[in-house]
Amino acid sequence: MKLATLFFGRRLSNREQGTRKLGWFEAVPAMGLDGLGSASYGPEAALTILMPLGAASLAWIGWVMAPIVVLLAILYLSYRQTIVAYPSNGGAYTVARENLGRNASLLAAASLMVDYILNVAVGISAGVGALSSSIPALQPWTLTLCLVVLALVTMANLRGTPEAGWLFALPTYVFVVSFLGLLVAGLWAIVVTGGHPHPVVAAPHLGDASGAIGVWLFMRAFASGCTAMTGVEAVSNGVSAFKEPVIGQARKTLAVICLVLGLLLGGIAIVAHFYAVGAMDQTKPDYQSVLSQLTAAIAGRGVVYYVAMASLLAVLSLSANTSFVDFPRMCRIVAQDGYLPRAFAVADRRLVFSVGIFVLTVAAGGLLILFGGITDRLIPLFAIGAFLTFSMSQIGMVVHWRRQGRGHAGRLTINALGAGTTVVAVLVILAAKFIDGAWITVLAIPTIIVALYLIHLYYDKLDASLQCSAPFTIEEADPPTILVAVEGRNRMTDQALQFAMTLSPDVIAIHLLRVSGPDTDDDGKRLKEQWQTDIVAPLETRGTKAPRLMLLPAPYREMHEPLLKFIARLDEETPGRSVAVMIPEAVKRRWWEYVLHTNRGARLHRMLLKHGNARVKVVIAPWRPDQV
Amino acid sequence: MKLATLFFGRRLSNREQGTRKLGWFEAVPAMGLDGLGSASYGPEAALTILMPLGAASLAWIGWVMAPIVVLLAILYLSYRQTIVAYPSNGGAYTVARENLGRNASLLAAASLMVDYILNVAVGISAGVGALSSSIPALQPWTLTLCLVVLALVTMANLRGTPEAGWLFALPTYVFVVSFLGLLVAGLWAIVVTGGHPHPVVAAPHLGDASGAIGVWLFMRAFASGCTAMTGVEAVSNGVSAFKEPVIGQARKTLAVICLVLGLLLGGIAIVAHFYAVGAMDQTKPDYQSVLSQLTAAIAGRGVVYYVAMASLLAVLSLSANTSFVDFPRMCRIVAQDGYLPRAFAVADRRLVFSVGIFVLTVAAGGLLILFGGITDRLIPLFAIGAFLTFSMSQIGMVVHWRRQGRGHAGRLTINALGAGTTVVAVLVILAAKFIDGAWITVLAIPTIIVALYLIHLYYDKLDASLQCSAPFTIEEADPPTILVAVEGRNRMTDQALQFAMTLSPDVIAIHLLRVSGPDTDDDGKRLKEQWQTDIVAPLETRGTKAPRLMLLPAPYREMHEPLLKFIARLDEETPGRSVAVMIPEAVKRRWWEYVLHTNRGARLHRMLLKHGNARVKVVIAPWRPDQV
Repeated sequence: MKLATLFFGRRLSNREQGTRKLGWFEAVPAMGLDGLGSASYGPEAALTILMPLGAASLAWIGWVMAPIVVLLAILYLSYRQTIVAYPSNGGAYTVARENLGRNASLLAAASLMVDYILNVAVGISAGVGALSSSIPALQPWTLTLCLVVLALVTMANLRGTPEAGWLFALPTYVFVVSFLGLLVAGLWAIVVTGGHPHPVVAAPHLGDASGAIGVWLFMRAFASGCTAMTGVEAVSNGVSAFKEPVIGQARKTLAVICLVLGLLLGGIAIVAHFYAVGAMDQTKPDYQSVLSQLTAAIAGRGVVYYVAMASLLAVLSLSANTSFVDFPRMCRIVAQDGYLPRAFAVADRRLVFSVGIFVLTVAAGGLLILFGGITDRLIPLFAIGAFLTFSMSQIGMVVHWRRQGRGHAGRLTINALGAGTTVVAVLVILAAKFIDGAWITVLAIPTIIVALYLIHLYYDKLDASLQCSAPFTIEEADPPTILVAVEGRNRMTDQALQFAMTLSPDVIAIHLLRVSGPDTDDDGKRLKEQWQTDIVAPLETRGTKAPRLMLLPAPYREMHEPLLKFIARLDEETPGRSVAVMIPEAVKRRWWEYVLHTNRGARLHRMLLKHGNARVKVVIAPWRPDQV
Repeated sequence: MKLATLFFGRRLSNREQGTRKLGWFEAVPAMGLDGLGSASYGPEAALTILMPLGAASLAWIGWVMAPIVVLLAILYLSYRQTIVAYPSNGGAYTVARENLGRNASLLAAASLMVDYILNVAVGISAGVGALSSSIPALQPWTLTLCLVVLALVTMANLRGTPEAGWLFALPTYVFVVSFLGLLVAGLWAIVVTGGHPHPVVAAPHLGDASGAIGVWLFMRAFASGCTAMTGVEAVSNGVSAFKEPVIGQARKTLAVICLVLGLLLGGIAIVAHFYAVGAMDQTKPDYQSVLSQLTAAIAGRGVVYYVAMASLLAVLSLSANTSFVDFPRMCRIVAQDGYLPRAFAVADRRLVFSVGIFVLTVAAGGLLILFGGITDRLIPLFAIGAFLTFSMSQIGMVVHWRRQGRGHAGRLTINALGAGTTVVAVLVILAAKFIDGAWITVLAIPTIIVALYLIHLYYDKLDASLQCSAPFTIEEADPPTILVAVEGRNRMTDQALQFAMTLSPDVIAIHLLRVSGPDTDDDGKRLKEQWQTDIVAPLETRGTKAPRLMLLPAPYREMHEPLLKFIARLDEETPGRSVAVMIPEAVKRRWWEYVLHTNRGARLHRMLLKHGNARVKVVIAPWRPDQV
């Protein structure tokens, strides 16, 4: 417990839940990190696809990014409306559930889960990519660094979101200011030099062309570039976190995020073109991310470079954090609806939903290990989930406005446009990325949906069998027969017997022979004699009925089998009578006490419940070694 | 359970324990594998130390092996006597315990544990070394192969030792016959050619000398070569397994093992000398073990070679098996004496002591991983444990004969000689191998001894507090107050309440508010109303006292805290009264049911015991979802 306090802070009471609301200036870093961080890997992912074109890739990157920026504008307009319509929680799962029904909401939930998990893996791997661009010696440690960052982010989230907004605000605004500044400087140099800027540090020469542009390559580049838009939905998920006027603040936040992201995407495309910056292979030792090359070309490898790169690393690591905030919260809602294990809905000692955090860490860690921490390999899996979510949310909004009736035609049109374009994007991404890895996502999503259904089925059945409508009755039953499992005569069994005799006049002590193995020295006869002199005789002297001792063989060294057999015999004699097995248990306070005791009692408890009939109960008689 | 049956066979009853006794012909493979297998790595380990001498190493290997063979003869004579003196179990732990007292026996136990663990690691790594000598393509997979063999040996031992003696006998006798045959053929060729035999496949050329022989190098080579003697004590450990005449059979077995081992060691030294076979580096891709080179030199790489190598691999893997038989048995004896956790003394479903097997596997696997499965790196750790064991056993025997009084002077002298030489060997090995890795063993042994002491201390205290001498009494106590933890009104709580009311007239239902977190929808008021109409009203109608419902806040989402606080309040009202907390528990039959339930009940049970006072008991009211 002390260790937990050291690492995660003291535990928090229900009353200590944070209630501070956000204004737009704080909300941009808190909710925009995921979206803004995407600017670093989206254009790079598109350029990576264009690599076979060699230098010609630069001529095409603008054409690839243009529709993405347009799509971003459409998404901005669409989500503006979601905020108005769902001012408490407009996550895709909720919107789909309210408007499209159960199946659609589960599709949205599964897509979101995949999206959140991939966002963690991609954000961290891109951040580590940025780090090893700056310090090439770290390149062989890519995967290790990814896992270290993941562990740190997990730890921070198990502590719970701190009120320290500056932790998020500082790197975000440094990132925004430095990269917008760099892009302006780059554009200025381009204009001044008539389109022929002189890079401070020239980007590595682009390889020779090994292919030509075609519809297929263009589609694939577009699909990869679409990852730049992931995270745009974050504001609509958390509208309830804003201060008054809620809708105004949320809309302002969304506008700032989309505007900055759009400027970054457009700027990067133009500057990369004129400075001849292309993508490089992250698995090669001389790898440099696109933003690293761009920054070096515009500003050299000086202070500005390192500040910009440091802010980028921070933003990408913290963009993983967005998933850590949203994934457990969404899982909680899904669990409350009965589609995920109930443990997802339990707030832990720091009031966070730690089961969701663990699942997210394990899943993202697994992906990072599987793909060696290489961003480029994760990208094909990524965009699908995000765009499926966008589509579900937009389609849900279209239905929402239709239900609201006339007078919402304009809004309906905008969301319909959003729905249409995102559905087209999903299809393009699916076609373009299927073989590269999107098939994994395509397999994962239905698998998750089936799991969600099965979980719900279980809870439905459970609830049905728990349900009772009749008023409470009792059948005036006798106290149960109590079987006390005794190892020998000692303080522990004495206490158990004394307790048993307060519960029922009908107590039988059971000693199981040779539960540890065939050649154990287990003298039933001696115990029987001792029982007579130490227990039966003194009780009978004072006229109390003494519990008799039964010796039962345990040929397979399982305690529950002879006990259940004996109980079956009792059942024949006195049908309908309840039986409680009393298990004396030495109280353990330290982990090593579990190692030093055989813990047979716990197994007996489990097995009696598993194999016993409805009338078999269990009583634990605790015994504390340190008490007299 | 079906899976366990598939892998490990059906479970065995206490009556099914094997009782078949061994004759010497069966005992040589069963008990001699460890000793005979050592012949393959002992001489090689000595030659490895001599590698810096280049070709000159061949001139010295004879001088190194000669004292080892003499030492072996002394050990033979000594252990012959141990067999007579301890015809049931003459393991070093027992002999030391009987004659030298507790401290010495714990030293022997710790040394034996280390020895057994290293025997597994060295046996398997040497076996895999032999395999990759024959099939060089396997060389990069050394560690993986080691772990696979370890897993197979573990699985086989969890099934329990089969009566199939041929599994051990066949490879052992093939090994003995083929290698003795090879050595005879080699010696014959040496004699016939006047000391200049023509190898069929010449051994790789020995490197240039980079050093000269000196006392230090000689000592180190001797210390490494001593690993050839590990396993000689096995016969004395298991005398009880022999058929009548027990002592005769055991002595014959020991004689055969020592004789064959001595012939192998001497023969290998001579033949290696004349065929110019030296050691090679196991980490290099062209590695060939000494026995592989020897066999190829004498018989070529034909059928004989592959048969001999296959028998060697089998013998070495099975020599690891010796540890798997002896380690759990010794741990069981030590656990019965109260120096190891009691779980070591519990026979599992196949009547084997699986805790010991698991510990051995984990420890040996850890060593293999740590040292990359390279025999040469493990050797320095190895001989220390074995020779410490020899010394403890011999010193114990000296004391034994002294206690027996006069008339045992001859026997005493032999064991004193054994004790003297093995103590010297321990000192030599310690000095020669300390830096190379023996320090690890030197650290491990006292650490284990301290652990054994601490475990004993715990059990001593536990036994003392369990002890009761006074006759049993009861204080005519009232039934306890029963607190039933209820989530809501449903069949599970109904059953629990009904059961509680048969145990005591004093039942209180407790509902904890917001145990899942601050914004859970937990309406205590509605439950209170429902309680009144569904439970209190119908009971009062029929004149029964109804259990009242208490709502308690659980600010830290821990159930035991508010309950224990409430119990403390009850204690003030009715001091001395026992309280039982009744925990309704849904019975789980499948692993995924544990995932789908929050398992809060199990935590409540644990925490109530850990933090409650002596009068707090626990009652489990099982509820089966499938029962009406």
